[in-house]
Amino acid sequence: MATATEANALGYNLDVDYVVRYSFGDVDQSQAIKELEKLLRTLASVGLQTEVRQGDETSLLVFVRATSKRLKRAVYRSRVRDWLYGILNSEPDSAGSIEPATEAERLRVVNQMITLPTEEGGAGITPKHGEWKNVTNVFPLHDEETNKEWMREWSKKTFLSNEELDQIRDKFGESVGFYFSFLQCYFRFLIFPAVFGFSCWFFLGGYSIVYTAVNCLWCIIFVEYWKRQEVDLSCRWQTKGVSAVQTTRREFKPEKEVRDEGTGEMRGIFPATKRMQRQLLQIPFAFLAAIALGVIIATCFAIEIFISELYNGPFKSYLIFIPTILVSALVPTISAVLMSIATKLNDYENHETNDGYDVALTQKMFVINFITSYLPIFLTAFVYVPFASRIVPYLDVFRLTVRPFVSKEHCDSKKSHFQIDPARLRNQVIYFTVTAQIVGFAMETIVPYLKQHAFRKYKEYNRKRHGKPAQNGDKDSPERSPIMTYDDPIEEKDFLKRVRNEVELSEYEVTDDLREMCIQFGYLALFSPVWPLVPVSFFINNWIELRSDFFKICMEFQRPTPLRADTIGPWLDTLGFLSWVGSITSAALVYLFSGNPQHGPNGDATDIRGWSLLLAIFFSEHLYLIVRYAVQTAMAKLEPPHARKERAERYLVRKRYLDSTINADPEKDLQQVKDDTLPETPEISRVALEDDARHSSMHDADPAERFWTRQHGWTESAEVGAGIIRAQPSSGSAKKQQ
Amino acid sequence: MATATEANALGYNLDVDYVVRYSFGDVDQSQAIKELEKLLRTLASVGLQTEVRQGDETSLLVFVRATSKRLKRAVYRSRVRDWLYGILNSEPDSAGSIEPATEAERLRVVNQMITLPTEEGGAGITPKHGEWKNVTNVFPLHDEETNKEWMREWSKKTFLSNEELDQIRDKFGESVGFYFSFLQCYFRFLIFPAVFGFSCWFFLGGYSIVYTAVNCLWCIIFVEYWKRQEVDLSCRWQTKGVSAVQTTRREFKPEKEVRDEGTGEMRGIFPATKRMQRQLLQIPFAFLAAIALGVIIATCFAIEIFISELYNGPFKSYLIFIPTILVSALVPTISAVLMSIATKLNDYENHETNDGYDVALTQKMFVINFITSYLPIFLTAFVYVPFASRIVPYLDVFRLTVRPFVSKEHCDSKKSHFQIDPARLRNQVIYFTVTAQIVGFAMETIVPYLKQHAFRKYKEYNRKRHGKPAQNGDKDSPERSPIMTYDDPIEEKDFLKRVRNEVELSEYEVTDDLREMCIQFGYLALFSPVWPLVPVSFFINNWIELRSDFFKICMEFQRPTPLRADTIGPWLDTLGFLSWVGSITSAALVYLFSGNPQHGPNGDATDIRGWSLLLAIFFSEHLYLIVRYAVQTAMAKLEPPHARKERAERYLVRKRYLDSTINADPEKDLQQVKDDTLPETPEISRVALEDDARHSSMHDADPAERFWTRQHGWTESAEVGAGIIRAQPSSGSAKKQQ
Repeated sequence: MATATEANALGYNLDVDYVVRYSFGDVDQSQAIKELEKLLRTLASVGLQTEVRQGDETSLLVFVRATSKRLKRAVYRSRVRDWLYGILNSEPDSAGSIEPATEAERLRVVNQMITLPTEEGGAGITPKHGEWKNVTNVFPLHDEETNKEWMREWSKKTFLSNEELDQIRDKFGESVGFYFSFLQCYFRFLIFPAVFGFSCWFFLGGYSIVYTAVNCLWCIIFVEYWKRQEVDLSCRWQTKGVSAVQTTRREFKPEKEVRDEGTGEMRGIFPATKRMQRQLLQIPFAFLAAIALGVIIATCFAIEIFISELYNGPFKSYLIFIPTILVSALVPTISAVLMSIATKLNDYENHETNDGYDVALTQKMFVINFITSYLPIFLTAFVYVPFASRIVPYLDVFRLTVRPFVSKEHCDSKKSHFQIDPARLRNQVIYFTVTAQIVGFAMETIVPYLKQHAFRKYKEYNRKRHGKPAQNGDKDSPERSPIMTYDDPIEEKDFLKRVRNEVELSEYEVTDDLREMCIQFGYLALFSPVWPLVPVSFFINNWIELRSDFFKICMEFQRPTPLRADTIGPWLDTLGFLSWVGSITSAALVYLFSGNPQHGPNGDATDIRGWSLLLAIFFSEHLYLIVRYAVQTAMAKLEPPHARKERAERYLVRKRYLDSTINADPEKDLQQVKDDTLPETPEISRVALEDDARHSSMHDADPAERFWTRQHGWTESAEVGAGIIRAQPSSGSAKKQQ
Repeated sequence: MATATEANALGYNLDVDYVVRYSFGDVDQSQAIKELEKLLRTLASVGLQTEVRQGDETSLLVFVRATSKRLKRAVYRSRVRDWLYGILNSEPDSAGSIEPATEAERLRVVNQMITLPTEEGGAGITPKHGEWKNVTNVFPLHDEETNKEWMREWSKKTFLSNEELDQIRDKFGESVGFYFSFLQCYFRFLIFPAVFGFSCWFFLGGYSIVYTAVNCLWCIIFVEYWKRQEVDLSCRWQTKGVSAVQTTRREFKPEKEVRDEGTGEMRGIFPATKRMQRQLLQIPFAFLAAIALGVIIATCFAIEIFISELYNGPFKSYLIFIPTILVSALVPTISAVLMSIATKLNDYENHETNDGYDVALTQKMFVINFITSYLPIFLTAFVYVPFASRIVPYLDVFRLTVRPFVSKEHCDSKKSHFQIDPARLRNQVIYFTVTAQIVGFAMETIVPYLKQHAFRKYKEYNRKRHGKPAQNGDKDSPERSPIMTYDDPIEEKDFLKRVRNEVELSEYEVTDDLREMCIQFGYLALFSPVWPLVPVSFFINNWIELRSDFFKICMEFQRPTPLRADTIGPWLDTLGFLSWVGSITSAALVYLFSGNPQHGPNGDATDIRGWSLLLAIFFSEHLYLIVRYAVQTAMAKLEPPHARKERAERYLVRKRYLDSTINADPEKDLQQVKDDTLPETPEISRVALEDDARHSSMHDADPAERFWTRQHGWTESAEVGAGIIRAQPSSGSAKKQQ
């Protein structure tokens, strides 16, 4: 009998590649059985072994494993496709000797075997879509041992090494690998602004020009360095140009069929111009989002100002929570509505590949993210502080809403004198960069984990309370709850329990984590002059973030299907954009607040301040652009090491090919070209000259030929030339004639 | 005997590929003869036929023609190199059957045979450099027939077709081809602003917002369209990525030798970081140039204001020319000094390739060009008109310089009242965009032509006056001028006369013409709101320019050695930069002058005007950037047709290779993979099951294997699954147990 330790060995997942969840709750039994047969037959036809177990009362779990021979063929086919599209440099070895290079490649190829359309060699199973809509999940199982081991190791170190990032890529694919590499790079880069920010905060306080300038420079260098690092990684992980092999989205509706010039196959296309027209709808959408969210946030902001600084009636300490509640209730609701509009717009745009779809969706979402994340601070910094003394008297309108609830004398007699709260901006920044990060961490990582555990305990409790083993034969109690135990083999019980837990988890999207990091970067670029300890907070947060994100992937999400990527996508442009906006806002903040903030917003001086404010912004932004251009130029000259290797490899592949064909070439080849350097040097004889003269006079010879035959060979030319030289007069030497 | 018409046939240039001019005026005769021998021997050793004729009294002309066999080998070697570096997609045919595809390729390869270092298979002849410094020129001869024919044809048409541009490329190489393609594209694009500008000028006058906005949009679209067109052309002319095969500059001084990873050869490198440090010197240089030229131009400008508008003493109509003379004398002088400093700096930077050298030099020169071309108008528009009423009183200092020359009473009594000349700006723009263009055309094309003819006539006259044929034996008259007739064969006289004329010409640099076009574009982008007829003037000028530039290349320069290029180089960035600056200056011009220009510069209102001016610039610039981003994104989605073809070709090349290896592969290949889709479906028999049970109990079987052998084949899995489905309770159906 196998020992317990063997179960934890390589075969921990019992060699299962993928788990396919088939749900039969919505269809009647005969149709379910037919669909199940079809599913299993299709899987088997592409070379996948199957095992069926029960999932829960309305689903089956189909465990899938690829047979060795068919897997090799699928890997070969995938690599050939890569080579045809220029992602790999040398053509793959023949199909017989190929093995998947990494676990991620194996899982990716098996996923292709399951999901690619039949004409491309796959089973054509499209979860939740079309004829397979009862197939709800297709996911691989977590490698719990390695996950735990990595989490233990990483909690002891500060930095992950390149080898560990490679390990992440080997297990989870390049897309996740890029995210962790980005996070690690960002974390490493944060050391400098953390240290510098701390010293500036200590010695100079907030709003210092020195800190702002260094901060903007840091943002430029970080973004440009990451761009270079992306190229390096994509060469190292051999995914450069991988967007060329993206498969078509199954929701893509082509307008017409066209024969592709390259591959010679028919493929559906949708004209790019038509898509661009549809994309123009993004402009009204952006306005709608800006107005909707802006109005809500601004109104809640105004209410908050009123209550916290103007109002002095009863229940102040309770009413202060009204704007917070309003914001927390309204903003996510409106955001969700806007996100669904964005998704519908995105579907309308009919993108051809998943990448294209994701990029476009990210761009739309970013408008929403930008407003919800940064507008509150913008309002405080650029509306409240400069113009409060003008606007606040208008806020008295809110008194009218309060009046019915408060007695008249309370209201009138407590008209307080309005004073700007100078620490408001700083407190708000501290809130967003420290408190919100901690709350976000809790919401993202801890709460779902606790929820899962609570849910599982509840299900267990339910099962123990209601369920009796079916073997008792008690069929006549319709009120009794259905059977909750499963007919599992003994040795598979733990395994299947784990699998059933993993089935309940949701799918992981790396773009959500990237969004979070970009928004965080935005705070650093836009608002850190207010409170120079922002990078310190982010530094600590990101150390935890890397490990907590890994924990999240392992514990709270299904193991993601490995995806290939050569970039973090549209977030890179976002970083550049935030860096640019940061140059403007930083200059404005320093200008407005570097003096005494009380004296800033003064009605008379607004015009002059406005003029020099705009001038400061003008200079700051253009200085930013010049420095960014210089850094880009400098970075472009430093070729990343792996890119250089990849270029050299491309050269060597062709060189080897050339050498092999040259040796086979019976004609004079390059080697002979190098050897054969000495031409014949015929003697110049009178006979030859006379022959030539006779020859040329006898035929209608080409005047060109006559020109070229006057001097046979270079020696004769040399003599003629020497004669000409001697014939020329030169100072002090006797004149000789030819 | 050959007839006269035959001489004008294909062999018009007597099949001469290159003319090498060897000058022996500086060395004594025996050394000259030795060098000549060495030159001819080296040329012959790479397979070039030579013929020597006399050039003039201090030089010889060595006519060079490549032998067919060696030329084929050189073409093959060049194409192999292209293929190794990824410029060509498919490897070239074997050496035996290769012909140069175009005349330009032939000339380029022969030039390589002459100039490449010996280790790369060339003769290693480096004109004016090192051991070959008496070799002063290496150039091909003009094909006069074709040149004349083309000039005749083009003078009849408005637009050149793509085929004609291809013809230019076939004759003169891709570098010149790109210039003419750019010029043609720019000309075509100018139709719209010419028409639109004319209507705006007619209906709206100057400084209209409509015209400015459309102008900026046009600039964006033109630059982005040309970028796309460059990619298309480089794919069509198969030079994409050609910068990878640039040969090392001979003046390059490597710091150390390093083994190249790709090619495995030793090559000298100079660290990019060290070069970047040296490039930092550009910053003080730019300041120096700005200050030097700026002071001169500003001073002359001030003098001109004084004399034309303040001064009313005698000789005014003569004194008015002083600033013009000063500018025309000082600015070119200082520019020349600055350019020599720039060249020295550029040499110091030790660039590795000619392309790198040219790009860096262009960037340095551009500072000089920008200031000399645009600063006068900047001064008029943004210093004179807004601030003149403040500054002009200070100009009275010039009165002091005039005082000694003019009687006292004239000076004092003629203190005129200062009034801004509103048409000054417009007149200045008209000067730069019409007058200066015409003068430039004359200086560039007509004057050198006339100079040449005058010079030749003078030489002829001299020769006829002084020279007697040497056959007269008159050796004893030392005062007599040297012999001016040459000992040419009769039938070569005309030919050699033509060659001797061509030897006198200078070398053509395409970058000068590109600079001229970019500066012209700058006027359009920056200042055309002042006078909307600017594009009309440029439209007419560019029609003439294309033909006159071709005339210039054919008549006033030696035929250029064909160079390959895949871009117009740093001028593309310059166009983008000028377009950007244009968005700022256009907004400022419209803002300052769209009202009554008299009322603009008024001391009191300056502050308010300053603030809203900056706001206008802020919005205009950012609107420009947003629109540019949108246009770039839209253009990126529209793949140029030839780029698509090139990508398809790359795919097909690899596909063909794959198909050829698959058929040769004895193992199961991709075809079989597609056929072999049905797995075996073994019967489930009781015997088999029992065997399995026995088998698993007898060995320490892998738990994974036990898992996977519970259900043999998909049919058994289907049965198990069906059982599970039936076992689940469903509404209305009887419960069945397995």
